[in-house]
Amino acid sequence: MFNKVTIIGVGLIGGSLGLGIKKNKLAKVVAGICRRKTSAKAAVKNGVCDIVTLDYKEGLAGAELVIIASPVGKIVDIAKKVVAHTKGEVILTDVGSTKSGIVRQIEKMAPESVKFVGSHPMAGSEKNGVGFAVKNLFENSICIVTKTKKTDKKAFLAVKRFWENLGATVSVLSPEEHDARVSLVSHLPHAAAYALSGMADAKSLKFASTGFKDTTRIASSDPYLWHDIFMTNRKALLSALAGYRAALRDIEKCIRNGSSKRLIGVLKKAKGVRDKL
Amino acid sequence: MFNKVTIIGVGLIGGSLGLGIKKNKLAKVVAGICRRKTSAKAAVKNGVCDIVTLDYKEGLAGAELVIIASPVGKIVDIAKKVVAHTKGEVILTDVGSTKSGIVRQIEKMAPESVKFVGSHPMAGSEKNGVGFAVKNLFENSICIVTKTKKTDKKAFLAVKRFWENLGATVSVLSPEEHDARVSLVSHLPHAAAYALSGMADAKSLKFASTGFKDTTRIASSDPYLWHDIFMTNRKALLSALAGYRAALRDIEKCIRNGSSKRLIGVLKKAKGVRDKL
Repeated sequence: MFNKVTIIGVGLIGGSLGLGIKKNKLAKVVAGICRRKTSAKAAVKNGVCDIVTLDYKEGLAGAELVIIASPVGKIVDIAKKVVAHTKGEVILTDVGSTKSGIVRQIEKMAPESVKFVGSHPMAGSEKNGVGFAVKNLFENSICIVTKTKKTDKKAFLAVKRFWENLGATVSVLSPEEHDARVSLVSHLPHAAAYALSGMADAKSLKFASTGFKDTTRIASSDPYLWHDIFMTNRKALLSALAGYRAALRDIEKCIRNGSSKRLIGVLKKAKGVRDKL
Repeated sequence: MFNKVTIIGVGLIGGSLGLGIKKNKLAKVVAGICRRKTSAKAAVKNGVCDIVTLDYKEGLAGAELVIIASPVGKIVDIAKKVVAHTKGEVILTDVGSTKSGIVRQIEKMAPESVKFVGSHPMAGSEKNGVGFAVKNLFENSICIVTKTKKTDKKAFLAVKRFWENLGATVSVLSPEEHDARVSLVSHLPHAAAYALSGMADAKSLKFASTGFKDTTRIASSDPYLWHDIFMTNRKALLSALAGYRAALRDIEKCIRNGSSKRLIGVLKKAKGVRDKL
């Protein structure tokens, strides 16, 4: 599919991309660009790329597809480096969990030769690091690929096909719709879990059972990663959080006023949504 | 341990009590009292009690320990029936997930011969019905037993030993402390999960992955049961919900104001709590 694919940031996602590309023979050469020597060593040790380097010029030379697999808060800055070090045409994508800000900023800054298409592969775990990379991470997952007025059609199709060849089902959304939908089913649940976990004192935790454990599992996720996601999906997440607090206030009101019928209605509706999954 | 134990309400918890009592030889006879013929038939079919009846007088005759294993909203009314149909002394306990209201009301109403001790075995699942009853449901679980100024010491020790003989570790709390602690680690997470699930529309649910699924799993729980728990733990739950909304508002403020350091602090603290479990 490609002569050379370059992955910038070789952690759980970047490493799994390297392994998946090799498994599915999507490129002749897979290069990885790391920020630190220790990550480069770990990438080499885990055999996820053919070439691992700290040098953008070397890593990007001849690449037809570049994937930024860094933490979400660093994607735009890395895209600037890609633009600075790229000669000729290249397709650029990312794996960021938020899209509006990233897509808007990169589209504004990139020259015509750097064809950016936003991606969000919905796969991963609360684990971090290339040591947890697996070749089939994207199989049977969903990947959202964004489309805007500025999106290059050929690049869009190539990126879409790339994720499909890794085993993912692709959904096409505008960056704004992506952020709104994902804030409800991913970013808000993380904020909810962090807030819930933060409230429990040691004495009460003694009585925590599976309900608490499941509801707060994702509060074990990386605080820096989720800080970045929360901050870069500001608009949609603030709206989701306000809606969530209103839903909680509604439950409070039912309890305070003894509105049994209304409360049962609220709980039944929520159960109906969850039971469908 | 007892000549006769009577369980009122033979569902998942009541049925598992019957099986556990027999397994651990805690009573010569286990009687079950059901409200409906269909539940009585199911109890007989699943062999969880020696005697199953719809009749309180018959079920209670000669019982030394009576356990109310009904939905939490019906416990006080059933306790009144137990008082009305009991001749002589009896130890009475329950399995309700809320305690202040139940303990206060039963202590006020019961004659000295009916010695009430509140219990809350923290075991179960989102499944319902005697068909899911298992003999080891309480093994390695925690059971909270309440103690007040009015609690009879002998009855208290007998109830404590009873749960320990079923394999549970007993914690002794006042009903008020029980409600405060359990609201944080069980009732609030249920309210949070119901509110979260209720917000997700069909289009967004397409993108729900394990994070959303785990966080909302308990929103599949029985709405009537949780209505009762929410309504009978009104005071502690309203306070927990207000605290939870304040914690969410704090996260919102960090995002709105771009307070990265503070947000990372909040997320790290929450992760620290969760990582300990």
